[in-house]
Amino acid sequence: MATASAVARNCRKVMCIGRNYADHIKELNNARPKQPFFFLKPPSSILVPGGGPLLRPAGVKLHYEVELGLIIGKTVRNLKESDTQGALDAIAGYILAIDMTARNVQDEAKKKGLPWSIAKGFDTFMPISNPIPKGAIPDPHNVNLWLSVNDKVVQNDNTNLMLFQIPRQLSDISRVMTLEAGDIVLTGTPKGVGSVVVGDVLKGGLSVDGKEVEEAGLEVT
Amino acid sequence: MATASAVARNCRKVMCIGRNYADHIKELNNARPKQPFFFLKPPSSILVPGGGPLLRPAGVKLHYEVELGLIIGKTVRNLKESDTQGALDAIAGYILAIDMTARNVQDEAKKKGLPWSIAKGFDTFMPISNPIPKGAIPDPHNVNLWLSVNDKVVQNDNTNLMLFQIPRQLSDISRVMTLEAGDIVLTGTPKGVGSVVVGDVLKGGLSVDGKEVEEAGLEVT
Ligand SMILES: [Mg+2]
Ligand SMILES: [Mg+2]
Ligand SMILES: [Mg+2]
Repeated sequence: MATASAVARNCRKVMCIGRNYADHIKELNNARPKQPFFFLKPPSSILVPGGGPLLRPAGVKLHYEVELGLIIGKTVRNLKESDTQGALDAIAGYILAIDMTARNVQDEAKKKGLPWSIAKGFDTFMPISNPIPKGAIPDPHNVNLWLSVNDKVVQNDNTNLMLFQIPRQLSDISRVMTLEAGDIVLTGTPKGVGSVVVGDVLKGGLSVDGKEVEEAGLEVT
Repeated sequence: MATASAVARNCRKVMCIGRNYADHIKELNNARPKQPFFFLKPPSSILVPGGGPLLRPAGVKLHYEVELGLIIGKTVRNLKESDTQGALDAIAGYILAIDMTARNVQDEAKKKGLPWSIAKGFDTFMPISNPIPKGAIPDPHNVNLWLSVNDKVVQNDNTNLMLFQIPRQLSDISRVMTLEAGDIVLTGTPKGVGSVVVGDVLKGGLSVDGKEVEEAGLEVT
């Protein structure tokens, strides 16, 4: 498996699904989408382990969203939603990622009908773990994701709660834009998002059948 | 100068400014922004000369927006708005580009406060010209951009009409996200945007002091 730096270097597109866990939709008072919707983060927002602290831009209310990330391994175009095997075959490996969000910037954009790119795209707004070998996650729809702030667990849910599963996500994305080897897909965040301030320590990880996956361990300050 | 394919291959981020020409803002009944705003297009949306036809996704009202594109030549971070020379030095060359937009998808997103990434990001939604050597455009704020549909000129304006000039654009972008060599910045579209249907032929180009720049010639079907 490549290093996190190689994952960052090989990435040309990060597609993220929004509102993919029911309890997270409720906590932000959002409408439940009838179909998945997506937004881009720039590769320049990736922060690799040991890559330094999270930037906290002035005036920004900074929120964390822990997510399972897919590293795409091949060109995917017009994938059928029913093609579960095709979707799994497209995955080269995984990462744990935090979809950092300038929530006040995003709220303002939503109100005005403006793009989310700035709110989601600041440098360091996508901390990632080391790459997780595909074999360490036999079923991406049965993974426990967790995130703690100052050692208090704030997010802790299973990916079996996704509203739209990975084949549907890759199908919808790939009918709009071709997925290329190295692209990353973030699959949505469970409930428990919240804000962090300077000095807070974020830790994250994921477990499969109660066993922590070592590569997924993530710590940012 | 590299080929258009090399431009596409080296690009990891396309940042586009919205509403940067007053008469274009009026024609779409948009609010005039107090500060520039930006959105991302994925590199996978780039269509190089000879790369095939524009895709017209079913149910999509497809709009053209001709724009001057900057090919970034080096890492740019926290550029000062007053650093005009720094902004010009960051430019390695230019392209003519069409920021194709699924206008009905974008209108829906704007209404719901959702991201623009899909509306702006379909495959082929960014036709580009061959790269234009930097020396062919002595002043990027004095370039005439034009676009025709079926040989009828529909857009034809000078970049001196930009509301926010390039140093301000690169300053604002680079205070959010680092610009890297190979990134592309689209600088906004003048008035005259409109829709195209299957069979329409789009041609575009740009001129400097009344002289067409050969590399900028662009034709898509
Ligand atoms: Mg957006
Ligand atoms: Mg998210
Ligand atoms: Mg545009």
